[in-house]
Amino acid sequence: MDGVSETNRNPIHPTDLTMLGLGAMGSALTAALLDADHSVTVWNRTPGRDTDLVARGAHAAGSVREAVTASPVVVACLLKHDSVHETLDPVIDALRGRTLVNVTTTTPEEARELASWAAAHGVDYLDGAIMAVPAMISSRAGQIFYSGSRAAYDALLPIIDIWATSEFHGEDAGRASLVDLAMLSGMYQLFAGFVHGAAMVGSVGMSACDFAARQAPFLAAMTAELAGFAKVIDGGDYTVPNQQSLDFSDLSHIVRASEGQGVDPAPIAAVQALIDRQVAAGHGSEGFARIYESLRATVSTGQVRR
Amino acid sequence: MDGVSETNRNPIHPTDLTMLGLGAMGSALTAALLDADHSVTVWNRTPGRDTDLVARGAHAAGSVREAVTASPVVVACLLKHDSVHETLDPVIDALRGRTLVNVTTTTPEEARELASWAAAHGVDYLDGAIMAVPAMISSRAGQIFYSGSRAAYDALLPIIDIWATSEFHGEDAGRASLVDLAMLSGMYQLFAGFVHGAAMVGSVGMSACDFAARQAPFLAAMTAELAGFAKVIDGGDYTVPNQQSLDFSDLSHIVRASEGQGVDPAPIAAVQALIDRQVAAGHGSEGFARIYESLRATVSTGQVRR
Repeated sequence: MDGVSETNRNPIHPTDLTMLGLGAMGSALTAALLDADHSVTVWNRTPGRDTDLVARGAHAAGSVREAVTASPVVVACLLKHDSVHETLDPVIDALRGRTLVNVTTTTPEEARELASWAAAHGVDYLDGAIMAVPAMISSRAGQIFYSGSRAAYDALLPIIDIWATSEFHGEDAGRASLVDLAMLSGMYQLFAGFVHGAAMVGSVGMSACDFAARQAPFLAAMTAELAGFAKVIDGGDYTVPNQQSLDFSDLSHIVRASEGQGVDPAPIAAVQALIDRQVAAGHGSEGFARIYESLRATVSTGQVRR
Repeated sequence: MDGVSETNRNPIHPTDLTMLGLGAMGSALTAALLDADHSVTVWNRTPGRDTDLVARGAHAAGSVREAVTASPVVVACLLKHDSVHETLDPVIDALRGRTLVNVTTTTPEEARELASWAAAHGVDYLDGAIMAVPAMISSRAGQIFYSGSRAAYDALLPIIDIWATSEFHGEDAGRASLVDLAMLSGMYQLFAGFVHGAAMVGSVGMSACDFAARQAPFLAAMTAELAGFAKVIDGGDYTVPNQQSLDFSDLSHIVRASEGQGVDPAPIAAVQALIDRQVAAGHGSEGFARIYESLRATVSTGQVRR
């Protein structure tokens, strides 16, 4: 070991970062850090997941406490919200004064709970929501949304930018998770819509592959419409010209066509229900974007935007 | 009037085509035919909609009967299925021996009913489902699916290709409509998914425009996943490797996050219900595409694919 390394190594912190959780995502995050010449301590509840990473230079910790005390920054990439408490509650005293970056998938409320818990124990908390599959981490093709401690985000940006494009969404620790889940909600509704359509055409013998070849480019093109809906929603006036009206957007013929072919219409019937609610309230001549009013949070005073 | 025109004009058929219905779509279809130098007779229930088209060379018919007898090919672009009967039942004798191209929006069962009705009266029936807004007709940017009479489709292809890319889907007259509605079902579920996500992030003050700027490119990219789902569905084996499992696709945290923000989770809860049904049946370790089995038509023998 040469003198330069000796000088650069913080005697209190043998490594730069600690990774708790070596599932597919935790391993990908660790590998990216190692590739960028960061020193990383790793720990996983089930042993044996660290072999490849240790071969690439990671330090294996024998316990959570050893892992936490090894670095000033601890990244948690665990199964779920409960796992964070189960793993860190017993060593919370050791976490004091450090930064916890939690990229475990949680709901916004769970992220806020963890932020309060961290604050109560003197831990700087940054919540991260990963918009990527593990294979995208090394290629930096994904995005990670962060919220919580602005100071932690600013200090860590050169490191966390190794994983993906980073975006800070504010000091409400739940916000990164909320934006992430809203993005994923749209994705799963897109997927379910496709599978529903495939079941409709499958009832007359058209293959799902044939349908996908038509549906994928059509839906990709239709994403261009979202900006227009957004503009109307933000403006709050659903009567602006050049919109497709709710009356014209009646989907009952799609629901009937699905039923007529013996295919469960539930996913499209759920959309029709949002339309019906607005038409019943007398807004049929207004634009399709008005289904926002069927979904949106009513403000805490009980006042609803009309 | 010169001798050439006189010779070329069929004395029995003053014009090539007749257009019934001059709404935005009927007018666009007529304009495209006129631009391609076809002679067109036009009729609309409400008078006065033909002024521009007549100025461009269309022949105005004084009655439905006059319109129908003017051309060997009659195109119906009316409000809905009932409108076709209301318009043509009184003159069905005049329609005998002609070709009816019906591009009025109908369900598959309504299209099949019209095909039977046409056959019973000696009318060649071609059903068309338009995948385009009127503005796309003149630019040929859209698609039109056809089904019903193959002979009519083959004979008319040089003319109908003026409107959009034509695609024949078979002699089941309901099939064009079914494919069209399946495509639109996916589109409306995409739209609703976006509006639901916008309501989620809107609850913490993020604008719908901000959300659309992230959601639109993300969803466009995610359409690349549809071919993979389709392959699994067509293969019928949901256990093939490298799929995201239903257990992993648990959306209950999205449902809870939506509820937690006061946003109606109905559209995403409908997707979760499809997942739940398969997980409850013991298929949680199989791929996400298995939600197809929650939706698909059960075959008439009562046998359900497992």
